[in-house]
Amino acid sequence: MRHPLDYFLNPASVAVIGASTVPHKAGGRRWRSLVEAGFPGPLYPIHPGAKEILGHRAYPSLHDVPDPVELAVVLVRTELVPAAIADCVALKVPAIVVITAGFGETGPEGRRLEEEMTRTVRAAGSRLIGPNCAGLFSASGGVNVLGWGAPAGPIALVSQSGNVALTFVQFAREKGLGFSRLITVGNAADLRLPEYADYLLTDPETRAIVMYLEGFQPGEGRALYELLRGRSAAKPIIVLKPGKTEGGRRAALSHTGALAGEDRIVDAALRQAGILRVSEAEEAWDVAIAVASLPPMRTGSVVVVSDGGGHATIVCDAANRLGLAVPCLSEATRTALGKLLPARSAVINPVDFAGLAEEEPEVIPRVLDVCLGDASLGGVILAGHFGGYVKIATEELGRREVAAAAEIAEVVRRHGKPLVVHTIYGGERLPALEVLRGAGIPVYRSLEASAKALAGAWRWACARRPTASPARRSRPDRSRVASVLARAQVQAGGVLLEPDARELLALYGLPVPPFRVAATPEEAARAAEELGGEVALKLVGQGVVHKTEIGGVLLDVAGALASRAGFKTLGDRAEAAGVTDARVLVTPMIAGGVEVVVGLLRDPQFGAVVMFGLGGVLVEALEDVVFRLAPLDADEARAMIGEIRGVRLLRGFRGRPPVDVAAAVDLVVRVSELAADWPEIAEVDVNPVFLLPQAAAVADARVVVAIG
Amino acid sequence: MRHPLDYFLNPASVAVIGASTVPHKAGGRRWRSLVEAGFPGPLYPIHPGAKEILGHRAYPSLHDVPDPVELAVVLVRTELVPAAIADCVALKVPAIVVITAGFGETGPEGRRLEEEMTRTVRAAGSRLIGPNCAGLFSASGGVNVLGWGAPAGPIALVSQSGNVALTFVQFAREKGLGFSRLITVGNAADLRLPEYADYLLTDPETRAIVMYLEGFQPGEGRALYELLRGRSAAKPIIVLKPGKTEGGRRAALSHTGALAGEDRIVDAALRQAGILRVSEAEEAWDVAIAVASLPPMRTGSVVVVSDGGGHATIVCDAANRLGLAVPCLSEATRTALGKLLPARSAVINPVDFAGLAEEEPEVIPRVLDVCLGDASLGGVILAGHFGGYVKIATEELGRREVAAAAEIAEVVRRHGKPLVVHTIYGGERLPALEVLRGAGIPVYRSLEASAKALAGAWRWACARRPTASPARRSRPDRSRVASVLARAQVQAGGVLLEPDARELLALYGLPVPPFRVAATPEEAARAAEELGGEVALKLVGQGVVHKTEIGGVLLDVAGALASRAGFKTLGDRAEAAGVTDARVLVTPMIAGGVEVVVGLLRDPQFGAVVMFGLGGVLVEALEDVVFRLAPLDADEARAMIGEIRGVRLLRGFRGRPPVDVAAAVDLVVRVSELAADWPEIAEVDVNPVFLLPQAAAVADARVVVAIG
Repeated sequence: MRHPLDYFLNPASVAVIGASTVPHKAGGRRWRSLVEAGFPGPLYPIHPGAKEILGHRAYPSLHDVPDPVELAVVLVRTELVPAAIADCVALKVPAIVVITAGFGETGPEGRRLEEEMTRTVRAAGSRLIGPNCAGLFSASGGVNVLGWGAPAGPIALVSQSGNVALTFVQFAREKGLGFSRLITVGNAADLRLPEYADYLLTDPETRAIVMYLEGFQPGEGRALYELLRGRSAAKPIIVLKPGKTEGGRRAALSHTGALAGEDRIVDAALRQAGILRVSEAEEAWDVAIAVASLPPMRTGSVVVVSDGGGHATIVCDAANRLGLAVPCLSEATRTALGKLLPARSAVINPVDFAGLAEEEPEVIPRVLDVCLGDASLGGVILAGHFGGYVKIATEELGRREVAAAAEIAEVVRRHGKPLVVHTIYGGERLPALEVLRGAGIPVYRSLEASAKALAGAWRWACARRPTASPARRSRPDRSRVASVLARAQVQAGGVLLEPDARELLALYGLPVPPFRVAATPEEAARAAEELGGEVALKLVGQGVVHKTEIGGVLLDVAGALASRAGFKTLGDRAEAAGVTDARVLVTPMIAGGVEVVVGLLRDPQFGAVVMFGLGGVLVEALEDVVFRLAPLDADEARAMIGEIRGVRLLRGFRGRPPVDVAAAVDLVVRVSELAADWPEIAEVDVNPVFLLPQAAAVADARVVVAIG
Repeated sequence: MRHPLDYFLNPASVAVIGASTVPHKAGGRRWRSLVEAGFPGPLYPIHPGAKEILGHRAYPSLHDVPDPVELAVVLVRTELVPAAIADCVALKVPAIVVITAGFGETGPEGRRLEEEMTRTVRAAGSRLIGPNCAGLFSASGGVNVLGWGAPAGPIALVSQSGNVALTFVQFAREKGLGFSRLITVGNAADLRLPEYADYLLTDPETRAIVMYLEGFQPGEGRALYELLRGRSAAKPIIVLKPGKTEGGRRAALSHTGALAGEDRIVDAALRQAGILRVSEAEEAWDVAIAVASLPPMRTGSVVVVSDGGGHATIVCDAANRLGLAVPCLSEATRTALGKLLPARSAVINPVDFAGLAEEEPEVIPRVLDVCLGDASLGGVILAGHFGGYVKIATEELGRREVAAAAEIAEVVRRHGKPLVVHTIYGGERLPALEVLRGAGIPVYRSLEASAKALAGAWRWACARRPTASPARRSRPDRSRVASVLARAQVQAGGVLLEPDARELLALYGLPVPPFRVAATPEEAARAAEELGGEVALKLVGQGVVHKTEIGGVLLDVAGALASRAGFKTLGDRAEAAGVTDARVLVTPMIAGGVEVVVGLLRDPQFGAVVMFGLGGVLVEALEDVVFRLAPLDADEARAMIGEIRGVRLLRGFRGRPPVDVAAAVDLVVRVSELAADWPEIAEVDVNPVFLLPQAAAVADARVVVAIG
């Protein structure tokens, strides 16, 4: 079956409803860009009066077109759109792009119109891009209704903003690598991100995908994530997504009406999905060029080769900061480089031509050959002013520089390893640079961009996409879990009583210490005796949500006598707080180790999210927590735990023994399974968990169930 | 008296020793750039055989030049440099630039040669730039011995790398604002950063200073800092300084032999000095253009005006992240904007032209007039594709666009507030953009760069330079301090015994709780009685450096009896550890509050540095500390304390009361004064200090004195 997007990107025929005879109007510009895109099939301008536009016969209505239309582009005035859609639907046009604005982005009435239009289109088995979009471009399909030219190339762009798409087109013009497909989604009334990703991931014309996103519609982030699960061999996706801050979010909201979301969750989810998130527009394009062009990177160790110290310093610094290693070169490599370079050249890493390359450019491919031949190195950054040596020397040297570029391309091809080039002349179309670009070697005009590009290639090599079904750890008795959860229905706010929460977590194999629930002082005393040692007494009762606020917790209670007294104390406090069914949970005190928190929440965009971090009152103030989508496997949980700032506390610190990180991993995985199994669980807060040298112990837990 | 640098930048005559007749050789290129720079006085090429070079009569030796030479540029082979220097010195040339390499950067022998050359030059009363530099440029002086052209403008550059200087020249060519002076310092054998800064800060040709630094020589960072103290009305200085990471540092070390230093201290010192540090080369230039061109910014609230949503989202996001506010506009401003813009336009902030500006560019100056007229707003970012409207429309619209640019310039001039412009065509020389640039309105091709530029202007407006003599807090008895410090001379490693450290800190007015030093169990018992409550017992003795390691601390000791027993316990432990002069410090236990650390260290580049952070074992693992150069005033100390990540702990958290931050401020200021007063104090570690709701209390302290 043909993918719905294929009718948009490779249509057999195209009609433009609202094509204009006035060249600089939107309908004129877009018609021109379509005509000039070299579309191989028939093109039909729909215009109330014109006989022809730019050599194509015009028709007063879609109904007058003699043959079937596969793609209809609508850019008539807002009030005329419903009639245009009706025509498309009547004629079974499978793909409709509505460029016209004035719908969901304007308010409730616009939203209603948009929903109606979407229903009409889908009921007819057609699909819709837009409304309020800037059109699309397909290089191999010969389609361009953007109204501006776009260079062809291997990069697909999906953009929630037309103007940002134009920004990328400008980058493509300046940097010389272009688009396979370019889709502006506008209000995204029908087709959604996962469908675009699904098509582009298998599109033979596309080697890398760039997405500009302002937000995800409810569930959309999760759907994209699920799509990518298990597609470990898929293409790189680079996402530029602002909205991290209040101002950015307001702008985003007013634009697409999409949720901007808690940025830390977005960040975790994208990383977990193996998506490369970038923070600036130009970086998105620079990284896309790299991952679309370069061979795979096998290690993160790189060598920086430059014309002189300052450039090398900046590039090494940036590379290191971005997660690449710039190691000292091996004795063998240094010896080999020493034979090619003058004594004044540094050969440790960075490698410095010390002025030789601009007199003898032939040395560059030789040096690169040595560097790329070193099996311990994953790639090379060449920095300086290559391509512009000709500017400070003779034309003869310019010819030698171009020949050196061809040699460089050949060396790189032979080794099959990434080379990226920085040159201060990277913004110019110099002959030697064109040779490099033609051979798929990315060239950058910014020092830091060259490092970001190679670091992006390494990030992509390391990107780990979640497996579709991670190995399960918990084997809960589902009927017992269901009956525990059912009890929550009668609790205020859906909060489970602590004994129930403990039972639930224990059913999932969490390390819940033994506990008893005492209804009388005598039971409390007996429980303390049975459990031995010091105990904690915790008030249990309907409506006791924040135990500590009413003094409902007694710690370090030693022995039966004290427990009996403690029960009475808590009973009095319960009575004062109006609690009528007071009981007391008795459980051994836990001491030592490191307090952590494991949590679960439901994000409107990404669904179940687990949290891990330092617990306890002091460190909690530091908000040292990390997030992941659930469920996850042990490797992902281990990576997650390793990301907290205070990770040193877990590894032993100042003579303290290291704690049981494996137990923490297990705990996170099990909570993530709980989340996946029971959608009605809205929140879990296991806080604190004591991580001890050989075990973990849950000291308190809170489970909130969505009340049906 | 003429500043020594003035002979370099405004010389009356220039000789080039090693000028070449071969155009593409270093000596030929540099001679040509000098000739083409339009130097108004006599130029003398020194060449063994040539009669003239590029129309200037050549001389075989400097001694043959008929008139005095003020600036001599040396670029002969390394082995010929000493003779050239000897000629310069003999002829009393006041300014000598040595471009030739092969000196300090090559090793001990080169370093020896370089030191000898420097001594010779200075003994003659001359000054030296280089060796191993790329030359210099002075626009108003008509001097250019770089060998490449450089555009003139208001920005001065001091660079520790010639290649990085060339990078900035390329940015200047692309972006259209240039250099007043450009100096590459090479090995900086003689003239140092503070001298360059001193000259450029009062140079009428210079409006902003950019420095590319790889490191500071010992004391150089401090000297630059001292120079800037109290010069609060001085010019903006922008510093690009890599070397934050291992690889970058290795490159830096191999290049200039300068210390790269602990980056957090560098960062704190630069900020404290009111220097704007940037992290990327292009950012340095983009910010320099902004601070050199824009009128002062009076508030950090800005409005973003754009052609459409996506650009605004990205710019708002970046602006917010960089410390600018993007507030909702006032009712009055929104009403005024609503009269200019169509109903579909957003006017909250960002403001959206929604397609109007590209049809009626006249609306732009009107919208800017409203925004700049709002007193609550400090500046405007205009984002989109201004300047390129002409590309999608008619030539007539192009003319209107240019007229709108002139109107924009007029509106901006009238309001005297900053406007920065982003346009995707910012890399091109389009007519409307040239009008803006000509009026001093910075234009950027990158969205994020426009935000960084305006944020840079705001950072500069907020930059607070330290006052030369901050108000003093401590009034110590200097003779008593001296006698305490003298006692350290007999201690291993110069570590003061704790009673001495406490006495010293108390002399500086630090909140040291009462204590007694007991030599017998009976004295310990009496001390505990006198002090009352629970006490801490701490072993004191020669060689007891790490008390806790030998069990030398007992906490929560209650009463005389327990104190007597405690003394014996500590005595036994001291004996076991071979301590022969054991005594015991008795002091009340402190409880509650937040544990912090106040420290002092000596940095080789920046001198005395104070540290503040969270103390205690858990939070210490998180390395939540900040640094400042000492001495500092209370405002600076307050700012410093506010920068720790865990600052919420100080402000009250989870029902705990806020602690006495004023006491912490006082403590930091007093330690900084101690540091400034006594250079022989190498290290202080007051850790922990308990910050309580109404006071602070020092619980432990360590003072290390450099042993003379």
